[in-house]
Amino acid sequence: MRNIKLTIEYDGTNYHGWQSQLNADAVQDVVKKAVKKLTGEDCNLIGASRTDSGVHALGQVANFLTGSKIPIDKFPKALNSVLPDDVVIRNAEEVDETFHSRFAAKGKKYRYLIYNSKLPSALLRNRAYHVPFWLDLEAMKLACGALTGRHDFSAFRAAGSNVKTSERTIFKAELSFDATVENRPQCRRPSPMSQIVPWEPRLIEFEIEGDGFLYNMVRIIAGTLVEIGMGGIPAGSMAEIICSRQRNRAGKTAPAHGLYLVEVYY
Amino acid sequence: MRNIKLTIEYDGTNYHGWQSQLNADAVQDVVKKAVKKLTGEDCNLIGASRTDSGVHALGQVANFLTGSKIPIDKFPKALNSVLPDDVVIRNAEEVDETFHSRFAAKGKKYRYLIYNSKLPSALLRNRAYHVPFWLDLEAMKLACGALTGRHDFSAFRAAGSNVKTSERTIFKAELSFDATVENRPQCRRPSPMSQIVPWEPRLIEFEIEGDGFLYNMVRIIAGTLVEIGMGGIPAGSMAEIICSRQRNRAGKTAPAHGLYLVEVYY
Repeated sequence: MRNIKLTIEYDGTNYHGWQSQLNADAVQDVVKKAVKKLTGEDCNLIGASRTDSGVHALGQVANFLTGSKIPIDKFPKALNSVLPDDVVIRNAEEVDETFHSRFAAKGKKYRYLIYNSKLPSALLRNRAYHVPFWLDLEAMKLACGALTGRHDFSAFRAAGSNVKTSERTIFKAELSFDATVENRPQCRRPSPMSQIVPWEPRLIEFEIEGDGFLYNMVRIIAGTLVEIGMGGIPAGSMAEIICSRQRNRAGKTAPAHGLYLVEVYY
Repeated sequence: MRNIKLTIEYDGTNYHGWQSQLNADAVQDVVKKAVKKLTGEDCNLIGASRTDSGVHALGQVANFLTGSKIPIDKFPKALNSVLPDDVVIRNAEEVDETFHSRFAAKGKKYRYLIYNSKLPSALLRNRAYHVPFWLDLEAMKLACGALTGRHDFSAFRAAGSNVKTSERTIFKAELSFDATVENRPQCRRPSPMSQIVPWEPRLIEFEIEGDGFLYNMVRIIAGTLVEIGMGGIPAGSMAEIICSRQRNRAGKTAPAHGLYLVEVYY
């Protein structure tokens, strides 16, 4: 049997996440159906990450075993021709038969987009979390600094998740935004006036890389950063929140549609 | 009567363009319905540009007369609360009663996005024109240079359009793209190999500003630039095509979903 590793991009808007579910459209099912059309086989498609409903992927990875003789370089175009246009195979490669896309993963990179503007955006409505209150980006950047390194991230784990350890190593946690906008003086001063003074809309990008993530961890971190940006949680308390290991010390879970699985590292 | 000028963003994917039509959803109808819900009045909503089906807008402008006493700063949020989330009022201002959003327009700015990659993108599928052949960006940039100034743009006018003059002044026509990608050597050489050598996906942005545009003019210019990028039309012949005033000398009309009405100038 050949073991095929796929890299998949999808717009999660119209799917109930990656994982197959009864009575719901999952990206996994859609890709399995495409593989069946191409090879005639019912495959066991193993995804690296179980993205939630509404979450997007630029580089989800999944693998399956097949007896098909189709040349590897034909897979992307052939699968794309039978897939809906909101799911795209970006790459296919033949890997060792022991390769398992979830167990072999050494790390992942996620992106979270925040649209910070008084009014919502029609074009970004399913692509970024709309926050209509002015965010103090310097405070949010400061808080990001506490995330890197090896920590017990219990404070950022959704209830009901069941994993052996809640320790994870974060390699990188960075916040970026449109600099021309940030340079405007009214965006600089985190004064009480900032909630009523007009400001220019900003697209804020939070990127985080780590050796693994707990259930909803990136969305809870993003929600905590937003509350820090709004002044509800002090910027300096991120380290404390981590140490507390108390979910109620962290912020709300930010919505799924701002989250992107960017890359899986092996 | 008060004359209200709205600035509107919309995702054109699910609409049959701006202009009201029988048996079809038009953005104009959706906004008129929202105004009716808010003011109780059937308004005459005048749009600056009749964008086609699938075309997006970041800054469409439309105005209407109303007897409503609602404070002007309440209009955006109030209208957005009754609009679908793919149409957003970005601004409302009260203008002179003689203001007419189409006749008063001094110019417009459009953007055309091209996704240049062998494989399509799930997230950009309705936002950028996917061109799977390598494009010579230097040739396309060179061709842009010939567009600026006052010219008869008959060669870039869709058949059946009926305007007095086909002379228009283009203030700016610029092509930009991700520079880190362009610096890769394999993207530099416009050799016959370029169609088969792999290249990194690129998002190409074409921006054009002018005092007015003929029907489908931006899409025909974008289509011509793509054919120049593919080598089907020589880069140096843009000026000749303009002079010829022959529609058949220009390229195909590029698809609607890559086009954005960015701004209307007054």
